[in-house]
Amino acid sequence: MSTVIKNGTIVTADLTYKADVLVEGGQIAAIGQGLVGDEVIDATGCYVMPGGIDPHTHLEMPFMGTYSADDFESGTRAALAGGTTMVIDFALPAPGQGLLDAIKVWDNKSTRAHCDYSFHMAITWWGQQVFEEMPKVVEHGITSFKHFMAYKGSLMVNDDEMFASFKRCAELGAVPMVHAENGDIVAEMSTKLLAEGNNGPEGHAYSRPSQVEGEATNRAIMIADMAGVPLYVVHTSCEEAHEAIRRAKMNGKRVWGEPLIQHLTLDDSEYFNQDWDHAARRVMSPPFRDKKHQDSLWAGLASGTLSCVATDHCAFTTEQKRYGVGDFTKIPNGTGGLEDRLPMLWTYGVGTGRITMNEFVAVTSTNIAKIMGMYPKKGAVLVGADADLVVWDPEASKTITASAQQSAIDYNVFEGKEVKGLPRYTLSRGVVAVAEGKVQSREGHGEFVAREPMGAV
Amino acid sequence: MSTVIKNGTIVTADLTYKADVLVEGGQIAAIGQGLVGDEVIDATGCYVMPGGIDPHTHLEMPFMGTYSADDFESGTRAALAGGTTMVIDFALPAPGQGLLDAIKVWDNKSTRAHCDYSFHMAITWWGQQVFEEMPKVVEHGITSFKHFMAYKGSLMVNDDEMFASFKRCAELGAVPMVHAENGDIVAEMSTKLLAEGNNGPEGHAYSRPSQVEGEATNRAIMIADMAGVPLYVVHTSCEEAHEAIRRAKMNGKRVWGEPLIQHLTLDDSEYFNQDWDHAARRVMSPPFRDKKHQDSLWAGLASGTLSCVATDHCAFTTEQKRYGVGDFTKIPNGTGGLEDRLPMLWTYGVGTGRITMNEFVAVTSTNIAKIMGMYPKKGAVLVGADADLVVWDPEASKTITASAQQSAIDYNVFEGKEVKGLPRYTLSRGVVAVAEGKVQSREGHGEFVAREPMGAV
Amino acid sequence: MSTVIKNGTIVTADLTYKADVLVEGGQIAAIGQGLVGDEVIDATGCYVMPGGIDPHTHLEMPFMGTYSADDFESGTRAALAGGTTMVIDFALPAPGQGLLDAIKVWDNKSTRAHCDYSFHMAITWWGQQVFEEMPKVVEHGITSFKHFMAYKGSLMVNDDEMFASFKRCAELGAVPMVHAENGDIVAEMSTKLLAEGNNGPEGHAYSRPSQVEGEATNRAIMIADMAGVPLYVVHTSCEEAHEAIRRAKMNGKRVWGEPLIQHLTLDDSEYFNQDWDHAARRVMSPPFRDKKHQDSLWAGLASGTLSCVATDHCAFTTEQKRYGVGDFTKIPNGTGGLEDRLPMLWTYGVGTGRITMNEFVAVTSTNIAKIMGMYPKKGAVLVGADADLVVWDPEASKTITASAQQSAIDYNVFEGKEVKGLPRYTLSRGVVAVAEGKVQSREGHGEFVAREPMGAV
Amino acid sequence: MSTVIKNGTIVTADLTYKADVLVEGGQIAAIGQGLVGDEVIDATGCYVMPGGIDPHTHLEMPFMGTYSADDFESGTRAALAGGTTMVIDFALPAPGQGLLDAIKVWDNKSTRAHCDYSFHMAITWWGQQVFEEMPKVVEHGITSFKHFMAYKGSLMVNDDEMFASFKRCAELGAVPMVHAENGDIVAEMSTKLLAEGNNGPEGHAYSRPSQVEGEATNRAIMIADMAGVPLYVVHTSCEEAHEAIRRAKMNGKRVWGEPLIQHLTLDDSEYFNQDWDHAARRVMSPPFRDKKHQDSLWAGLASGTLSCVATDHCAFTTEQKRYGVGDFTKIPNGTGGLEDRLPMLWTYGVGTGRITMNEFVAVTSTNIAKIMGMYPKKGAVLVGADADLVVWDPEASKTITASAQQSAIDYNVFEGKEVKGLPRYTLSRGVVAVAEGKVQSREGHGEFVAREPMGAV
Ligand SMILES: [Zn+2]
Ligand SMILES: [Zn+2]
Ligand SMILES: [Zn+2]
Ligand SMILES: [Zn+2]
Ligand SMILES: [Zn+2]
Ligand SMILES: [Zn+2]
Ligand SMILES: [Zn+2]
Ligand SMILES: [Zn+2]
Repeated sequence: MSTVIKNGTIVTADLTYKADVLVEGGQIAAIGQGLVGDEVIDATGCYVMPGGIDPHTHLEMPFMGTYSADDFESGTRAALAGGTTMVIDFALPAPGQGLLDAIKVWDNKSTRAHCDYSFHMAITWWGQQVFEEMPKVVEHGITSFKHFMAYKGSLMVNDDEMFASFKRCAELGAVPMVHAENGDIVAEMSTKLLAEGNNGPEGHAYSRPSQVEGEATNRAIMIADMAGVPLYVVHTSCEEAHEAIRRAKMNGKRVWGEPLIQHLTLDDSEYFNQDWDHAARRVMSPPFRDKKHQDSLWAGLASGTLSCVATDHCAFTTEQKRYGVGDFTKIPNGTGGLEDRLPMLWTYGVGTGRITMNEFVAVTSTNIAKIMGMYPKKGAVLVGADADLVVWDPEASKTITASAQQSAIDYNVFEGKEVKGLPRYTLSRGVVAVAEGKVQSREGHGEFVAREPMGAV
Repeated sequence: MSTVIKNGTIVTADLTYKADVLVEGGQIAAIGQGLVGDEVIDATGCYVMPGGIDPHTHLEMPFMGTYSADDFESGTRAALAGGTTMVIDFALPAPGQGLLDAIKVWDNKSTRAHCDYSFHMAITWWGQQVFEEMPKVVEHGITSFKHFMAYKGSLMVNDDEMFASFKRCAELGAVPMVHAENGDIVAEMSTKLLAEGNNGPEGHAYSRPSQVEGEATNRAIMIADMAGVPLYVVHTSCEEAHEAIRRAKMNGKRVWGEPLIQHLTLDDSEYFNQDWDHAARRVMSPPFRDKKHQDSLWAGLASGTLSCVATDHCAFTTEQKRYGVGDFTKIPNGTGGLEDRLPMLWTYGVGTGRITMNEFVAVTSTNIAKIMGMYPKKGAVLVGADADLVVWDPEASKTITASAQQSAIDYNVFEGKEVKGLPRYTLSRGVVAVAEGKVQSREGHGEFVAREPMGAV
Repeated sequence: MSTVIKNGTIVTADLTYKADVLVEGGQIAAIGQGLVGDEVIDATGCYVMPGGIDPHTHLEMPFMGTYSADDFESGTRAALAGGTTMVIDFALPAPGQGLLDAIKVWDNKSTRAHCDYSFHMAITWWGQQVFEEMPKVVEHGITSFKHFMAYKGSLMVNDDEMFASFKRCAELGAVPMVHAENGDIVAEMSTKLLAEGNNGPEGHAYSRPSQVEGEATNRAIMIADMAGVPLYVVHTSCEEAHEAIRRAKMNGKRVWGEPLIQHLTLDDSEYFNQDWDHAARRVMSPPFRDKKHQDSLWAGLASGTLSCVATDHCAFTTEQKRYGVGDFTKIPNGTGGLEDRLPMLWTYGVGTGRITMNEFVAVTSTNIAKIMGMYPKKGAVLVGADADLVVWDPEASKTITASAQQSAIDYNVFEGKEVKGLPRYTLSRGVVAVAEGKVQSREGHGEFVAREPMGAV
Repeated sequence: MSTVIKNGTIVTADLTYKADVLVEGGQIAAIGQGLVGDEVIDATGCYVMPGGIDPHTHLEMPFMGTYSADDFESGTRAALAGGTTMVIDFALPAPGQGLLDAIKVWDNKSTRAHCDYSFHMAITWWGQQVFEEMPKVVEHGITSFKHFMAYKGSLMVNDDEMFASFKRCAELGAVPMVHAENGDIVAEMSTKLLAEGNNGPEGHAYSRPSQVEGEATNRAIMIADMAGVPLYVVHTSCEEAHEAIRRAKMNGKRVWGEPLIQHLTLDDSEYFNQDWDHAARRVMSPPFRDKKHQDSLWAGLASGTLSCVATDHCAFTTEQKRYGVGDFTKIPNGTGGLEDRLPMLWTYGVGTGRITMNEFVAVTSTNIAKIMGMYPKKGAVLVGADADLVVWDPEASKTITASAQQSAIDYNVFEGKEVKGLPRYTLSRGVVAVAEGKVQSREGHGEFVAREPMGAV
């Protein structure tokens, strides 16, 4: 059975042109004029783009005996509803747990996925076993390794562990990634704030100002360069971190920065909302920033000094957030965003003229596929590519509200935002998962995507 | 009749993959495995890339009653020999001459071209006629306008003329371009140097140091931003100019910088050669720079803060250069490079790891086609694109020497350089113009390429 | 007759210490413990500092057949009232008028001055006469030359005039100064805004945004460097200009920037006041800026990348401002500030911890005296220095209001600001000009201060 | 008994003027014309300047069971010979040793000093005892605390120890200092280089490239800002570190950088000398750098982004250096310089026009005295100041050679350098320690200088 998407305008990272797209066997079979297929999807007035790829999610992530509220079922359903056709989640080994073991755990969680997915492997501890298993992880198709410079006492690794792991990545052609905040300082600041009675959600923001992120970003870049490996910096939220990345690029280093849609559009005034729940629901790391950082992030997307837009989707219910009443360090870190990333970025980026449509595709899909070693299987509208496509209606609009969302949680940090530009159809490997705004995806349809080690950038 | 390029690896700005390319009617008819055609070109061991586009040449340019030595015949022949399949030259109206008149003059010169070509229109004076003809120039398919901030007394325009023209470009969706050097300072410095008896070729370099270029670049960027139009800066040769471009990008401005292959690989020590001829042959504006600027330019290509690599090919014979004996201001400005740009950039860029193969294609072809409004007709390996292709042999090598070159002049500024990476075949709209290093192109084969005004960037 | 200032704490650019100051014959005769004199000024609880020097005023400046409202009588009276004991005004030759002629005109105006003064000479046109008179101006003790890059059609000089004048300054050891805004762009923007019906005071701000100043600053720095001379940039009002200065310093250039107290404390929201008079009274060039620029200016003062704080005092009455009703380009440019500079800078700088007391003295007095070739006659608390002193009461406070000011105009741009930190006494060459806030200065007491050409910086 | 220095030109950080200086009781008793004293020092043709202060020495520093070769006797004798009248050394507690204990040890060493001295206290470990003794150290007059970010396994402290100590400094008004290199990376790199057989002195340079210093500098600045305290960065040797300091200043932070005379004038080519001894004698941390870093350091001194010039004098004999044959990590780190700092900086700074004489005094003496809490007792030519003076002959010259030096070691890293500008006399608290180049100082004359906690900057 074949499907043809007719009358649309194809928009890629590269190119805008009118053509039909023929889909067969889950892949793009032809691109051209007057194509014919068994089924027809009408894209009149729409843009046909590579489906979004979210390079940074935490679905069913273990937390204090429970889990983040969106699992691979609801999370990937939300993704598709918003035009995202693939997520890359994080396998997080427990202290001392083997990397291959962790893969098994995450393989089990992901069986329910509605869309395709892959994993990054986190290096949460260091030792001979980790060193030896890293090549096997790469063979498994997991070619990126995450390092936490914060979360002291749990996930955090120190500089020499990071250096050792980065050197191993260099040998393997793998991409090291960092969560860049100085964990020592954050820990001390948190203790101090709590001791002084600042235990509300705003204390979270006070405990990790932007320079703490800028410092760690700068440090990770140096360590990567000494190891002879590029670097992917997750959730770049501020001018300080962006400046470090720009400076590195000007010294000929290969570094990629990933702003989140949250940091591009929301700011730290949210933490001063009188309603504890309102503020706590926005607690994530790095925290939302002062508005002035937003200009820096947008300019980075337009000029190419920042490369990808993600969500760090890690959703907790209000009830879960309330674990942290009286102690902000116990508020589970994370917000949602999977369903909203594309519409929000289109509205605030393309709609305002800050970025072009082609740049929109680049930062939400193509750049990610390239950096993460799966282009052009993903992230492309090319013959032979997976038919992960979104038919985007630039005139469709809605008001974001939790009551209409796919996510399992009871609120939405973008509540009330008007967005213009929405998926009319979303296809996952050729299967229509969303049609006219109605989600009709299938649990378990999603497949693991094995990725290649470093090739052409 | 069809031609198939078999067994090669396609390298685009975007992608590296093994596939055959079928050419029919001057265009790419198919890309895929096992394609069949009337003729076969063997690309075993080679990369199949979009042919180079040189965005900056001066063929048969009028000069003191004579002309630059390479005309559209020899110049485009040299281009093809080096893997470049298109040039964009400059139509230069005389003072008071209409723009449409100038087009006619250049149309006449270009009838002998071996490869496709287009023109930028220079704004060498300002007046109502210029204002009124600009839209007609754009309709003609010439969608970029060049402005000289130097050459006081001849080509130079001042700030309010430039602002007026930039605003007109904004209305027309045309791209303004600048030769950025402060002409007032250069003129004064030249006078002063001559008065002090510094009349040799090194005086040329002293008269226009890098900060004179940096200043003008910075000024043009401001004026473009006030006019609400992007800006293309030709022959960005130094850190100061590059810094201004970077800073502009960080403020969300759209500015493109174009380093020349000469500035990337040669330095100002050449001007101190004891042989007057040696030094004079290297006289161009901006002059070669101190070595430290090269690092800046290469980092710009890798990080995307600089966008294109050109030659500013404007060849004069030694005899012509000698007009300037005793007065460096009379040495005709310009050097060759059309045949050498791709092999030199590959050798010093890809061969050293400074840029990837994909970035090589981007900066020599694809970015240029996009910025100049003719992508993907040019600059792409896509079905429907013009079959301007180069089959690149990464193992082929040679020593550059004037005695073997296509250019009409009697020397080569890259004389003696070893290059590794050369075209095995060059195709111009499907016609094999170079085969196994042998040029077999046809005079008059080249066609004018009409370009589109600003679209997606 | 001698005077001793007792029980105070001396604060210089350099040092804070308790000592008495003995004044005799208009100079400081001794500094030490337990000094005795004929008269005693009690400085208990106060700081004894060098009197302020305002390097930038326009008193009785000719304008459209009339003059700026504060002349040397009221202007210097206002200065003393606010702790400023010297002003440097600008001699402005009319087109074609000789420099020595202009000095005579300004000598006449200044006979009524209450405090000492000097002049900068403006280069408002260029020619052999100007070239030849410049050394005589320097011999006269006027060792700084001002150049206007804006005010096209009247004061503006172009790049080659500026370069010629800067080279002449280099020969003479004189300091070139610039009003840095791109006059071509300002003129075009003004025309355009008026044509579109934007004729109100806010049009003034739209016509000269910060990048127009940044560009001109950058250009002047390059020209000064090519001429081999340092540069003094007046009224540095924005990050772009400050950035150009910082960058220059990092290349080893000697450049000084002078923020105004207005730009440090007021912002462009004033131009959007509904009351035309309110907005027009704030019209000056450069205009007030967006708040974000203030952080840049304050950091510059603290880190030394900006050197002096001035007022550009050029006061016009509301009636005069109204010349520009219906056409913002006719609103006389300028605001007051002479009486308010020190209290405002103390309150918003020292009072907030942004700068130290010593830095306060440096930027309001000592740095200016050094750069302008009259240190330590002025700007110092040293034996032998002129006894231009202010006894500063850090606890005294008031609300600024036009009704209580010395200036001849009918409003004050700082109206309503609370300041803490005021002069208790101001001495001009040993004569008490202000006592307990009461002005008792004498018209005609002020003397011309001849300055030295460039020496140690 | 009184001494008068006659006929000289006084040069301070601030001022250049002709005056005599009267010295009585070890202090400056008068400055003026025609002063009379019991003894006369003729300063005809000379500059009278505050004696140099070296803020960074390691005399008799314990090392592998022995000590650095210059102790307080020979070290301070060398200082005086070169015009330096005070040194600040480092008290280095052993692991677990109390701070007050360490002071005793260093008090004992310093009894033999020829000139005045003070100590910085090093924080080599962290604990309750350290926390509690810090205020007592400050009371003792030691108001600066040094932290090593390198020397893993011995002196190095980690980020949270540093943060704790910095916060304590903030409470005490003390200045935290850092040796800024990332110790983890240096340790790993050293191990790797040795494992690969790179055991020569050049391995030392490879193990700690400039970005390792830049990173640590950037990190220390962030930590200081979070602690609310200024920061003094010792031995700033490269553009990366200087850039971090500049950037911090532009964000309104108070950070001081201290280049060494070695890094200003020598480069890393020394490590590639064929003679092991030659190279090993230059081993210090940070190592000498590529020449391009020198421009950055000089521009920093001229523009004020770098504040002080030191030596890090830590002299080891060739025999001691040879402990590291076969293993560069065992080569004792350090070079001499105490006798050469002033002549070298004068020759390469003032003599070349890079810095003024006043800036020379600022960076070798006055800035140090101010930052370190002992101005104007030290670092000033003011009545009441200690008569630590140098009578500087700008025409005197010599060739630096180990055979003529005061230092106890058998070589000099500046061997063969021609310097122009030497002390004719050096006075320590009024006592002539050097006369006409002849050292006549007295062992034990030097006294401890108690310093004040943070006051005006
Ligand atoms: Zn994270
Ligand atoms: Zn995350
Ligand atoms: Zn040009
Ligand atoms: Zn050209
Ligand atoms: Zn002005
Ligand atoms: Zn003015
Ligand atoms: Zn050290
Ligand atoms: Zn040291």
